[in-house]
Amino acid sequence: MAAEMAEQPETMRRVLERAVGDITATAHAIAARRPRFVLLSARGTSDHAALYAKYLLEVELGLPCGLASMSTITAYGARPHLADVLVVTVSQSGGSPDLTTTSQAAREAGAITLAVTNNPESPLAEVSEFHIDLLAGPERALPATKTYTAELMALYLFVTALGGQDGARAAQAIPELAEGVLARGDEVRDLAGRYRFAQRMVITSRGYGYPTAKEAALKLMETSYFPALAYSGADLLHGPLAMVDNISPVIAIVTEGRGGQALQPVLDRLRGRGADLVVIGPDPQVSAASGGIAIPTGVPESLQPLLEILPLQRLAWEIAMARGQDPDSPRGIAKITETH
Amino acid sequence: MAAEMAEQPETMRRVLERAVGDITATAHAIAARRPRFVLLSARGTSDHAALYAKYLLEVELGLPCGLASMSTITAYGARPHLADVLVVTVSQSGGSPDLTTTSQAAREAGAITLAVTNNPESPLAEVSEFHIDLLAGPERALPATKTYTAELMALYLFVTALGGQDGARAAQAIPELAEGVLARGDEVRDLAGRYRFAQRMVITSRGYGYPTAKEAALKLMETSYFPALAYSGADLLHGPLAMVDNISPVIAIVTEGRGGQALQPVLDRLRGRGADLVVIGPDPQVSAASGGIAIPTGVPESLQPLLEILPLQRLAWEIAMARGQDPDSPRGIAKITETH
Repeated sequence: MAAEMAEQPETMRRVLERAVGDITATAHAIAARRPRFVLLSARGTSDHAALYAKYLLEVELGLPCGLASMSTITAYGARPHLADVLVVTVSQSGGSPDLTTTSQAAREAGAITLAVTNNPESPLAEVSEFHIDLLAGPERALPATKTYTAELMALYLFVTALGGQDGARAAQAIPELAEGVLARGDEVRDLAGRYRFAQRMVITSRGYGYPTAKEAALKLMETSYFPALAYSGADLLHGPLAMVDNISPVIAIVTEGRGGQALQPVLDRLRGRGADLVVIGPDPQVSAASGGIAIPTGVPESLQPLLEILPLQRLAWEIAMARGQDPDSPRGIAKITETH
Repeated sequence: MAAEMAEQPETMRRVLERAVGDITATAHAIAARRPRFVLLSARGTSDHAALYAKYLLEVELGLPCGLASMSTITAYGARPHLADVLVVTVSQSGGSPDLTTTSQAAREAGAITLAVTNNPESPLAEVSEFHIDLLAGPERALPATKTYTAELMALYLFVTALGGQDGARAAQAIPELAEGVLARGDEVRDLAGRYRFAQRMVITSRGYGYPTAKEAALKLMETSYFPALAYSGADLLHGPLAMVDNISPVIAIVTEGRGGQALQPVLDRLRGRGADLVVIGPDPQVSAASGGIAIPTGVPESLQPLLEILPLQRLAWEIAMARGQDPDSPRGIAKITETH
């Protein structure tokens, strides 16, 4: 897992330089078919990349989107009406039967189907009309890291190209910035000490930072085995806030931009409840909290998720190591999860 | 909260008998406009009713659906293209500004807008083209119970009428069956003893039972302040399962039907990991687990959520009482949550 986290700037660069041509051509071919709605279908880490794509599609292109409830097709045999619908299925392995079944059923129901995977020979890639290859190389640790940021980069390039924009130029600086964030592992190790004995955690954000909150929670659960609950800041106020008290650790991903601004009232409420608040975000936000990791400023908000997840992956790894657990092989889970 | 839980058969009956006419007329007016895609917009408990409606719309009518990410509109100012889109906003109070803004923006963007609330004079009801009134009467406890089951019933009647079917007939027996389930509060009290000292919980289900899992988790967090994590069975296997060990309590909602069948491999995996498994579902499923509450059989799967949530609401209440907490007024939250 440590090696694969370190590879991320390189895998991002590979997507930016070598996958971008195929991604752009795919986006243009799909744009010509004029999809009116988008359904995104994924599980686990890839589901968080899909959620990132949902924000991009809605904010940048005004395309209404939904996350697919796969059991409606795989368990209940629903045959939805999918003309003008683009169905994007995201999966590192491309090997989970429910994803393949869903993409196939969607194609038969008239949808434009696109698979985003790290394996062009996978069943999912095969049954889908279009395919984007992540070129991330083999991933050996069970917790996905480099395939997640490769998915984010590929989906960013895809959505910008779908809207006729040059995403590669906007994203050009990201791999180098990622190197800078990864180089500050010592800061993350210090932060991890704080959570050595934590029994649970709440992770919150809004807008573009929300997929990062969900992915960070999953990484922590996979490696450190404590419950980490991710909420959008708004949802947190509608009930779960009751659970937070002065011994509850909270991590907030504060994007620089509108998502971060919308999160401010939530941060104030959390401070008011005495929560221990750690921030991943711009330096002033970190300084106003109990601690955190500063993220470079001046990056478009839609690209910040590619940087903000990096210290959180490392945090999960550090806590697992400190607790004597093996982050590479979490108990009870498999790399290709065979769900139906 | 106890009084409002007890009122639920009566509020269900009121929807079935007095709201059904308006609901059916609204559904027919909307059906005539031929929506092709549905977006559902809600927070907290109402978000789980919206998720229930998503399953109904997809399974029963084959309509592709999405849950709205409200911040794309309220924080980022996205103006999505919503011709042929039905936007359903569900809110007990109808008073949260983000829901009102979203419904209004959707209407301006060409969507058919429907508000489902317990307050016909609310801002949300006012800005939406159509409105369904839950007729549930005032709700005083902060954790929503009777408005949740009223929302489920109203949405069931709406979706069946949208598909040209007579939902009221199919649902006729539900209020009486609900009375039977509620009468078995002693069984739930016994079960609550098991969780007196629990630090966390995983709640899982698939298909029609999944909204129940999410709603039960929220009730537990609101009243008992411990982290309760809800996962669809498939998502649980994609990572979070690592968190479950032989001291982790798991509650599974096993619907009688395809969702319950799809959950079986997940139950086997949980048993294999030594998890303490309690079941809400048909009697044989309860008997095969460490404990649970049996739900009457022979009810259509799409209506079982109206019964399965009842013992789980009560469970949250019993645990809070046993721990000396006040389930009526959870710390840190308000009845009308003003999120933007």
